[in-house]
Amino acid sequence: MEAGYALACQTTVEGDLVVSIPPQEKIERRLKEGKRAAKVELPFHYEIHDQPLRKYTITLEPPSMQDQTDDWSRLRRELERRYNLEGLRIQLAVLKKLGRILREGEWTVTTVVELDAWDRPDGPPCVIDIMPGEHLESLWAVAIDIGTTSNHVWLVDLISGEVMAQKADYNGQIARGEDVISRIIYASKGQRGRETEKQKSEGVPILDLQSLGKGESGLEELQRLVMETLNRLIEEAAQERGISTNEIYKAVVAGNSTMIHLFAGIPPETIRLMPFVTTINELPPLRAHAVGLNINSVGRVDCLPGVASYVGADITAGVVSSGMCKTGSLSLFVDIGTNGEMALGDCTWLISCACSAGPAFEGAGVVHGMRATAGAIEEVWINPESFEASYRVIGDGKPRGFCGSGLISLLAEMFVSGVIDKSGNIRLDLAGLEKPARSRLREGEHGAEYVVARADESATGEDIAITAVDIDNLMRAKAAIYAGFSILARSVGLSLADVEQVLIGGAFGQYINVENAIQIGLLPDKPFESFQFLGNTSIKGAYMALVSREMRERVREISKMMTYLELSADNTFFDEFNAAMFLPHTDESLFPSVKKNQKNHEET
Amino acid sequence: MEAGYALACQTTVEGDLVVSIPPQEKIERRLKEGKRAAKVELPFHYEIHDQPLRKYTITLEPPSMQDQTDDWSRLRRELERRYNLEGLRIQLAVLKKLGRILREGEWTVTTVVELDAWDRPDGPPCVIDIMPGEHLESLWAVAIDIGTTSNHVWLVDLISGEVMAQKADYNGQIARGEDVISRIIYASKGQRGRETEKQKSEGVPILDLQSLGKGESGLEELQRLVMETLNRLIEEAAQERGISTNEIYKAVVAGNSTMIHLFAGIPPETIRLMPFVTTINELPPLRAHAVGLNINSVGRVDCLPGVASYVGADITAGVVSSGMCKTGSLSLFVDIGTNGEMALGDCTWLISCACSAGPAFEGAGVVHGMRATAGAIEEVWINPESFEASYRVIGDGKPRGFCGSGLISLLAEMFVSGVIDKSGNIRLDLAGLEKPARSRLREGEHGAEYVVARADESATGEDIAITAVDIDNLMRAKAAIYAGFSILARSVGLSLADVEQVLIGGAFGQYINVENAIQIGLLPDKPFESFQFLGNTSIKGAYMALVSREMRERVREISKMMTYLELSADNTFFDEFNAAMFLPHTDESLFPSVKKNQKNHEET
Repeated sequence: MEAGYALACQTTVEGDLVVSIPPQEKIERRLKEGKRAAKVELPFHYEIHDQPLRKYTITLEPPSMQDQTDDWSRLRRELERRYNLEGLRIQLAVLKKLGRILREGEWTVTTVVELDAWDRPDGPPCVIDIMPGEHLESLWAVAIDIGTTSNHVWLVDLISGEVMAQKADYNGQIARGEDVISRIIYASKGQRGRETEKQKSEGVPILDLQSLGKGESGLEELQRLVMETLNRLIEEAAQERGISTNEIYKAVVAGNSTMIHLFAGIPPETIRLMPFVTTINELPPLRAHAVGLNINSVGRVDCLPGVASYVGADITAGVVSSGMCKTGSLSLFVDIGTNGEMALGDCTWLISCACSAGPAFEGAGVVHGMRATAGAIEEVWINPESFEASYRVIGDGKPRGFCGSGLISLLAEMFVSGVIDKSGNIRLDLAGLEKPARSRLREGEHGAEYVVARADESATGEDIAITAVDIDNLMRAKAAIYAGFSILARSVGLSLADVEQVLIGGAFGQYINVENAIQIGLLPDKPFESFQFLGNTSIKGAYMALVSREMRERVREISKMMTYLELSADNTFFDEFNAAMFLPHTDESLFPSVKKNQKNHEET
Repeated sequence: MEAGYALACQTTVEGDLVVSIPPQEKIERRLKEGKRAAKVELPFHYEIHDQPLRKYTITLEPPSMQDQTDDWSRLRRELERRYNLEGLRIQLAVLKKLGRILREGEWTVTTVVELDAWDRPDGPPCVIDIMPGEHLESLWAVAIDIGTTSNHVWLVDLISGEVMAQKADYNGQIARGEDVISRIIYASKGQRGRETEKQKSEGVPILDLQSLGKGESGLEELQRLVMETLNRLIEEAAQERGISTNEIYKAVVAGNSTMIHLFAGIPPETIRLMPFVTTINELPPLRAHAVGLNINSVGRVDCLPGVASYVGADITAGVVSSGMCKTGSLSLFVDIGTNGEMALGDCTWLISCACSAGPAFEGAGVVHGMRATAGAIEEVWINPESFEASYRVIGDGKPRGFCGSGLISLLAEMFVSGVIDKSGNIRLDLAGLEKPARSRLREGEHGAEYVVARADESATGEDIAITAVDIDNLMRAKAAIYAGFSILARSVGLSLADVEQVLIGGAFGQYINVENAIQIGLLPDKPFESFQFLGNTSIKGAYMALVSREMRERVREISKMMTYLELSADNTFFDEFNAAMFLPHTDESLFPSVKKNQKNHEET
């Protein structure tokens, strides 16, 4: 309180108050600037004929007193005959303009036709748009990844199959909770409009009418917020290519089960309650207007199928885009975020699980944690003699805190240099040495801490330190993930030594220093070449499912064939977790490379 | 102008003005009061198993840590197994409450399932509602008839197949035009909101903000108006049975092609323009929310198929409910309204046409014409000696004008008594006779006229007379209809003498005096027992299509097999029309009974 702040969790609100949020806790609104979208390569040859979406230009005989066939029958008759279609249908939205467009185009029109029926590849095709004249130059669609933290939209030209624009931003739901659990709790709130009315009648001034008003339930608000983010990204992508969003006729969506529920406006409540089931793992195809997605209103929205509450479509999409389901080598796929979701298997079998790692690797639950934006320390080096720290900061400015990869690096360096012991305890005894490190190792407000950047070097004017509590959180996170690996392997009678490749998905995975991650026992001890960093495998999977019928079918197959292991029902989890609560692990034989390279600071 | 009124069609508006509409022109807002709904009998045995809509109550094993199947897969698995369904789907609206309802019902729920797929009898079934516990006592649907003038809603219990409530009211679109042509013109108006904004900015006071505002186009306004009428009728029917409109899961809709286009929000413009084609004769099935019909929002709405712009679903439904497509006897079906729509045929063939009879038989285009409501003269008798008139008034009060059946009766009596000659000319020479009739036969403002009710007996305080212009309008209407009959018969090499039964549909048909109608040559000269008055055949057809799969299929078959004859492209129409512009007809041999009974007032 003297320092000018209070812990919200320990403060009782007794009257009106103003809450100031320290800068490093504020959500950064922009994903890393200046990051250029890389050209996306498909691992297969694109075939337009593989598309269930087509454009056909057709010229009709105009009606006459001798042929008074209605407009739709006239168009259908000719489309069916020319393109060998059967049972062709039409959307009401298209019927509403059919008469006008046929005449504007003087009986030459371009139609957009979905060849796949609603969820049935053998079902009847459907006209979803019509325009006057010939317009065969492009056919647009989007791949969407709804992350709990960030959302990605790729605009795809289905004529060439190429990604023509990539946009990303933080999920607009973030201000309503940083992880899926808080989102689920927020979604279960009733209509906030009622509170507002009450507050109004009591004369309480409403500061944020926009988010309070509208009589929205928490669920409706979260759906609106994510849709606002996605719609802005779609609009930006469309603008970049100079097209209208009405020209986008399809969306394929990946995301974890909670994000997909919120996207569709389905209450996610049961996901967080025993026995942790979703309402639905594979949504039926939707029309864009049914959820409010800003593409053509009757454009089809396919949400990719997930496997379970905590192994969602982001993982099935990730597994497909990783290629692990096509290889004969035993592969381990992992997507580290708030939850560590992972899958083990090859082309013949797959088993998956999710461990609640907590948000430590995302910079939350750590005093000086932050997202991977400008000012985040992303790598740390500690001099094993002087215990002096040096570091690299994203954007090269002054540091403001640690992002996830910085924390992994820091933990590894502290361990290797001996600042912490196998159990993760900060060795304050080292502070007694007559070395400049003295001031870096100290007893702080939250227990022992190690200062990485001193107040005079930091952007915040405060010491940037890691505390014993932070370390405990990081240890729990890495232990949960490693326990997951172990149990997955053992459940099928294998050991992690049998794993031939480790595929790391998720934006976060791209920035992990493998050596550091092995040193702390987060990743299994394998040669560097066993690891592949795949970036955002969720959006890649959505893109593949969008452009390839085979990939779409593979995602569905995987969602059906993948075994899900519920760790909270596994009675060995606790043992495995405890065994992994050491650096790198209780069983050092699992990490031979760490043992070999580690300087021995232990009392032996 | 001296009498205090002006003809709108001959008046130039030069400034602000107030328009007062004489009472007899105002639309009566209630259909005949006190008319009890008759119990509707089906001509076949009702079978619930014939229904594509079912309710199933089912109890599920709750999920557990050992079985984390998602809610929808759990429900689907059990429904498919128990009821032998395949590929079961679910509506998004149901998914949104699925988790809550399953738990509220403690895993015993009642589902509403559509067995028919979207427009494909062999397609996958779909869950369209779910409720906790067992609720098998009822299953509701509605049959709807959208007349240009009046709308009818029948609430049907699909468990018994019985009509449980009948509601009717004038179509809310009436104030925007009395016939389909004026509705079509109104529908083509742009957004009225823009006018309003302009008017606002110019400081013009807006008197009717409700109908002007909302930025609605004419089409949107007409769709809203008919939906308001239908939704009120549905609400009233639901209230009468003590149910919620959400419990109504299906609607089958009949109506002429313009009414169906407006109901679905499809511009009807092309219907009135050469070569008179609709946008669509057979709409795809719709969900209620797509048009705003106030039944369960995902309830299915089937608009019955029509044949052409002026032979709509009201006629296909009428033909099916008339039974003419099941008989071996040559039948003539006719629905007399603004258009005289008719069909000729038997169980093996059908041919149809529509003649633009004009609204004379609906009381419009006749100086003292009015709808068949209280105060309308519905039957007239003229003394052939004194030319004195007596009449019967609906509601037994003082007369205010003539309704359609009154006009037919009047025309017939005038002809038979000799007040008019074969050409329909009023014989003013009779006024010279020393008889009290003198004052009834006179030269009026609109030419010769015959006074039926004198000012002192009328409710309006004015003489109620029929003028030469009125008679001409009536002659044209009846001639157009009779010409239609003749051309239909001749087009298939038959004559009207071959017709074995005449089936008269439409509310109006119920009140026609057959003898009168034959006397003026509106109906062919047949023995009384050849005529059947079927009432509102359109709503009956909608009801039959709702409760019977066979009937539904028959309507579709008829819409495909029925030949449509475009009278405006028929070069014999004008001759036939002119030949029928006499009473009863130029060719008196076609009306032997009239010739035989007619008193000879001709100069011979």
